[in-house]
Amino acid sequence: MSPDIEQKIRRSFAAQAMMTTLGARLVGLSDGATVIEAPILPSSRQQHGFGHAGLTFAIGDSAAGYAALSLMPDGAEVLTTEMKINLLAPAQGERLIARGRVIKPGRRLVIVQADVYAVQDGVETHIALLTGTMIPV
Amino acid sequence: MSPDIEQKIRRSFAAQAMMTTLGARLVGLSDGATVIEAPILPSSRQQHGFGHAGLTFAIGDSAAGYAALSLMPDGAEVLTTEMKINLLAPAQGERLIARGRVIKPGRRLVIVQADVYAVQDGVETHIALLTGTMIPV
Amino acid sequence: MSPDIEQKIRRSFAAQAMMTTLGARLVGLSDGATVIEAPILPSSRQQHGFGHAGLTFAIGDSAAGYAALSLMPDGAEVLTTEMKINLLAPAQGERLIARGRVIKPGRRLVIVQADVYAVQDGVETHIALLTGTMIPV
Amino acid sequence: MSPDIEQKIRRSFAAQAMMTTLGARLVGLSDGATVIEAPILPSSRQQHGFGHAGLTFAIGDSAAGYAALSLMPDGAEVLTTEMKINLLAPAQGERLIARGRVIKPGRRLVIVQADVYAVQDGVETHIALLTGTMIPV
Repeated sequence: MSPDIEQKIRRSFAAQAMMTTLGARLVGLSDGATVIEAPILPSSRQQHGFGHAGLTFAIGDSAAGYAALSLMPDGAEVLTTEMKINLLAPAQGERLIARGRVIKPGRRLVIVQADVYAVQDGVETHIALLTGTMIPV
Repeated sequence: MSPDIEQKIRRSFAAQAMMTTLGARLVGLSDGATVIEAPILPSSRQQHGFGHAGLTFAIGDSAAGYAALSLMPDGAEVLTTEMKINLLAPAQGERLIARGRVIKPGRRLVIVQADVYAVQDGVETHIALLTGTMIPV
Repeated sequence: MSPDIEQKIRRSFAAQAMMTTLGARLVGLSDGATVIEAPILPSSRQQHGFGHAGLTFAIGDSAAGYAALSLMPDGAEVLTTEMKINLLAPAQGERLIARGRVIKPGRRLVIVQADVYAVQDGVETHIALLTGTMIPV
Repeated sequence: MSPDIEQKIRRSFAAQAMMTTLGARLVGLSDGATVIEAPILPSSRQQHGFGHAGLTFAIGDSAAGYAALSLMPDGAEVLTTEMKINLLAPAQGERLIARGRVIKPGRRLVIVQADVYAVQDGVETHIALLTGTMIPV
């Protein structure tokens, strides 16, 4: 990855206030793949004390989106046009890890996938699978 | 709707810390349908200053989930098992309104839909369509 | 709808060998909406004698696609890029009716929906909800 | 896999008239994974001569469903409750291969995935990704 694209992605991530609100950090970045981590903050929980599906979605969607952006020419941006999430298990533990990757790059559409894991006492549980479409803008 | 079910839903909504974080309020509740509103807070934005897709998803998913819960017997809870969001336009304006409803109730699965609108200067724009499945637990 | 666009759609439908295989007919066509009917042929069934999900998908997807095409300029074609189907009830009866419509038109993406009904003894049952994205090509 | 379960799956596949109509064959079967092949018959095409999305969906959905069924106790059946397909490339070539697998087994819900490939002159192209939910009945 060129330093320009890496810098563009890091700057974009830092500018997402929602990521700050959720305590999310971009911890991995390579061509066509990213890793985002977030703690399950008290402020990100649902009514049973687990992480809210909105948290899982937000970091999964972002991980997938930046995976797509990593393959775009400098200057381009991407938007999610559709994303489906299958929730596999409760978001239970200390933190979540979202791993996004590009399934099919394209000039007009980029098909992406993300898997989200909850980490409890060092053990990862697969809690969500996201598949979606990003469009360059 | 029985007062018991209404109270259960209002208590559940109030217990979702994420809804508080997003400034979301449950503003409409009837049998099989709900309305949730949220401002586009500075802390809920993405890198271009629009509402984050995680905000749109979170309130759409919750509106759909409480619509399902409104048709459940007292004591039951529901979980999202899958949800797809089609994003139609940027989340631009002062606030978002999510309207959830039940498409097909069932003992084992409840199929739900939600539409999310952005309100700017009093004008509503349809920004997202969600369809998904809730399961009683 | 201009006669040119109507003729383009009818010609395209007639050229889909799969629609002939399924016995499907285009029975309704207006700006942004279409209706396709198909019998539940013995050759279109699954192992319990109901219509196969592939039949329901095929006519729902086509109904949604031609709804999108009805709003395109002459000369354009559309392709499905993604489609989600929620199956609500078995495809039981004499025939299926798929009603497609455009949720959000666009130059680059058209968001569409289709509802599929099974007709048994004159009674319609809602058996599937499809939401998806068409792209002009 | 027990011979009883294998026999149940082969009998179920053989009873799907739609699979016969499409020329589909179950060519691989193991615990939690299946492979289905189908030629792109003249009768399974869309208006440009490619395989119809209904063909791709039908064999992808079946591959995913039988993957789920392979992990069920004898006597159980499964139904698709929702399935999303992302179409990645045209269904161009001599035949399609659908590989289904279980992502997350469960007593109430089984989350599945399938990838569909088109084979042209011996070269496989990834043409579709399906993710969905099966329920035991």
